[in-house]
Amino acid sequence: MEYRAPRGTRDILPPESEGWDIILSKLTVRAEEYGYKKVIFPTFEHTELFKRGIGEDTDIVQKEMYTFQDRKGRWLTLRPEGTASLARLFVEKGIDKFNGVSKYYYFGSMFRYERPQSGRYREFYHFGVEALGSDSPYLDVELISLCKDTVESFAIKDYLIYINSIGCSECRSQYILKLGGLLKQVIAYYCEDCRRRVTTNTLRVLDCKIDKHRNAELPILSDNLCPSCSQHYDEVKKGLQTLNINWQENPNLVRGLDYYNRTVFELVTPYLGESTSILGGGRYDQLISCLGGKETPGVGFALGFDRLYQVVYSNNPDFLNSPRKGVYISSPETGLWDKVFRITFDLRNRGLKAECNYQNRSLKSQVKTADKDNYEFFLTIFQKDMVLKNLTTGEEKVYENEEEEKVLVLLSGKGDMS
Amino acid sequence: MEYRAPRGTRDILPPESEGWDIILSKLTVRAEEYGYKKVIFPTFEHTELFKRGIGEDTDIVQKEMYTFQDRKGRWLTLRPEGTASLARLFVEKGIDKFNGVSKYYYFGSMFRYERPQSGRYREFYHFGVEALGSDSPYLDVELISLCKDTVESFAIKDYLIYINSIGCSECRSQYILKLGGLLKQVIAYYCEDCRRRVTTNTLRVLDCKIDKHRNAELPILSDNLCPSCSQHYDEVKKGLQTLNINWQENPNLVRGLDYYNRTVFELVTPYLGESTSILGGGRYDQLISCLGGKETPGVGFALGFDRLYQVVYSNNPDFLNSPRKGVYISSPETGLWDKVFRITFDLRNRGLKAECNYQNRSLKSQVKTADKDNYEFFLTIFQKDMVLKNLTTGEEKVYENEEEEKVLVLLSGKGDMS
Repeated sequence: MEYRAPRGTRDILPPESEGWDIILSKLTVRAEEYGYKKVIFPTFEHTELFKRGIGEDTDIVQKEMYTFQDRKGRWLTLRPEGTASLARLFVEKGIDKFNGVSKYYYFGSMFRYERPQSGRYREFYHFGVEALGSDSPYLDVELISLCKDTVESFAIKDYLIYINSIGCSECRSQYILKLGGLLKQVIAYYCEDCRRRVTTNTLRVLDCKIDKHRNAELPILSDNLCPSCSQHYDEVKKGLQTLNINWQENPNLVRGLDYYNRTVFELVTPYLGESTSILGGGRYDQLISCLGGKETPGVGFALGFDRLYQVVYSNNPDFLNSPRKGVYISSPETGLWDKVFRITFDLRNRGLKAECNYQNRSLKSQVKTADKDNYEFFLTIFQKDMVLKNLTTGEEKVYENEEEEKVLVLLSGKGDMS
Repeated sequence: MEYRAPRGTRDILPPESEGWDIILSKLTVRAEEYGYKKVIFPTFEHTELFKRGIGEDTDIVQKEMYTFQDRKGRWLTLRPEGTASLARLFVEKGIDKFNGVSKYYYFGSMFRYERPQSGRYREFYHFGVEALGSDSPYLDVELISLCKDTVESFAIKDYLIYINSIGCSECRSQYILKLGGLLKQVIAYYCEDCRRRVTTNTLRVLDCKIDKHRNAELPILSDNLCPSCSQHYDEVKKGLQTLNINWQENPNLVRGLDYYNRTVFELVTPYLGESTSILGGGRYDQLISCLGGKETPGVGFALGFDRLYQVVYSNNPDFLNSPRKGVYISSPETGLWDKVFRITFDLRNRGLKAECNYQNRSLKSQVKTADKDNYEFFLTIFQKDMVLKNLTTGEEKVYENEEEEKVLVLLSGKGDMS
């Protein structure tokens, strides 16, 4: 039998895994400058949480969840996104009782059973950022600014920030009533998904890729907001202006999850051949109370890490190149193996990356390996002396056995090759 | 309905999550100095992989796996450990065709359906390290040395390294035959688990905690090795000596997984009240070929991250304390909010951690929050001037509005408070 990673999942190997670390570390530093702190939550939750939090009629809950029973018959689901888990944590730990603003970020796998396509996986990675405890429009602006800073920190210049307001449950439901009435007369011309959604999740008809062109005449949600939602939306735009952030209003941006209200946003880039969304988010002022917590407004976004990697890489493949580092130690004489081994560990203990050969391979093939693996030096131990070769310049220098300590000191960065 | 994390799982919040980052970063740096590179593999695999890799008769496969079918009826299992996945990856990517030594580390959740106990979770975290491609006993020593360096880098001084050799399939099966024969006469006195294991997984009778005292008279596996396994074991001990690593032979150390052969090891500490194993590993020379790859020897270990955190924390709770950092900006005048907001983002753009207030709270309660959240400075913006307070010393200084740039420069670390 041949063993393979399950369909829609994959392995991340070096150098890609190293690129992931570089990107993740930048995201983390940026989020921490903004005052966000890390949380980790379980990989699976009670299925009920996602049904309630994300919404029974959403695509995720209807078609895409990995759901199973544990040995006691409990229904569990691999998390398809992070916000519902974060909200559950927030209520369970009683953070809703504290009156401040709480700011968190998380990173991890998400799971959705979708048709695998290029760049789309069933296990994929989100970097998510959430702020709870304030309904200030300036907090929406903070999140959008963090999105912008994040992509710009990777020298990505070609991107667009879309914003929209989907109002509160009151103004939105009046709009949906109006929209539903108008769509009823023409829905027969729409695709199958739209015909289903028009009753279960009417707003999603607006962001259908197939029927986009049919929606031009329909009323716009952000023109139909109640005065308080309208004011919130205006202040978001004012705050964006204060920070010189460019945006574009997109009346068809509705996001597919039940918990959103008021501000929603998305950042798209053209790097992967077409306009690709690499992150999206919005406000969710009812989610905490919907899960049984004290009413607490919130706003957040999730960034598709796999896609960000692709964008960063396609924009600048060189970001993976790191300078030569460390030393590879060897000897052509098996009797000196103990010395090779001892020096290797001595250097590691001095904080240097050091490697030796655990196979019976020729010196030549070892130098090749050291070169390929990006080591900076190759040290060959002979009976009477040792030769240090700089793999960047090709420069070689012979040292007497008594000079061992001198060589170790210079290799561990406390001297130069003289 | 009340929503809670599923039984046996939990959330990691700050400051614990920050402690996790500190620990993980040390583990990573150390592994990279040793030449190991990061890999990431899927959270679940085909169930068959674990049955084949870990062994049908092991506790993990028999009782502890989270197994489910996807929407196409494929049997999938949440990974209970990392080595089988790493081996699958190694074969699937064809790395077994390359003749060098491949060295990887990974970090992530593992899942076992066990009875939750203090410090034991159903979703727990492993930091794993694996080296494939050489059967040199010095590679076993390298792994054991990395274990030692790792715990010592956390100033953990009280620990013990246990080693043993469980031989190869030939010498071990002869020993098991001998052991089984002897046990048959006395097994009626042993516990239920032992009575079952004596036929399915005979060696595990040796590490039973209940019947430990009954095994003193039994022959010892490491005394019954074939010449080549015996030589390997001797060289491991010689290599440990070369590096001044202390160890203790433990003839009852057998590890519960089918894939191990020859060297097995474990590191235990008394920090959590009793002798607790925080990492374990060994050699697995047949695993790659057993999964259909080209015969490739391997050796590795997995460290229980949750336990290491507990040990590090109980040894030195202060490791979580970080110095004050960043600035909190506010104003008692709502008309100056735009300025507060602008300065906050200006400082963030200069790479400083900066925060402002998104709620209508009193200045006093904001200073309290800033202090609790470990900010170094509090900047209050007034109509005519601004006051910078050092939250460590309590020192305050007034700056004119024209001095704004000067304040920003000194806060972003390019000046002092004069």
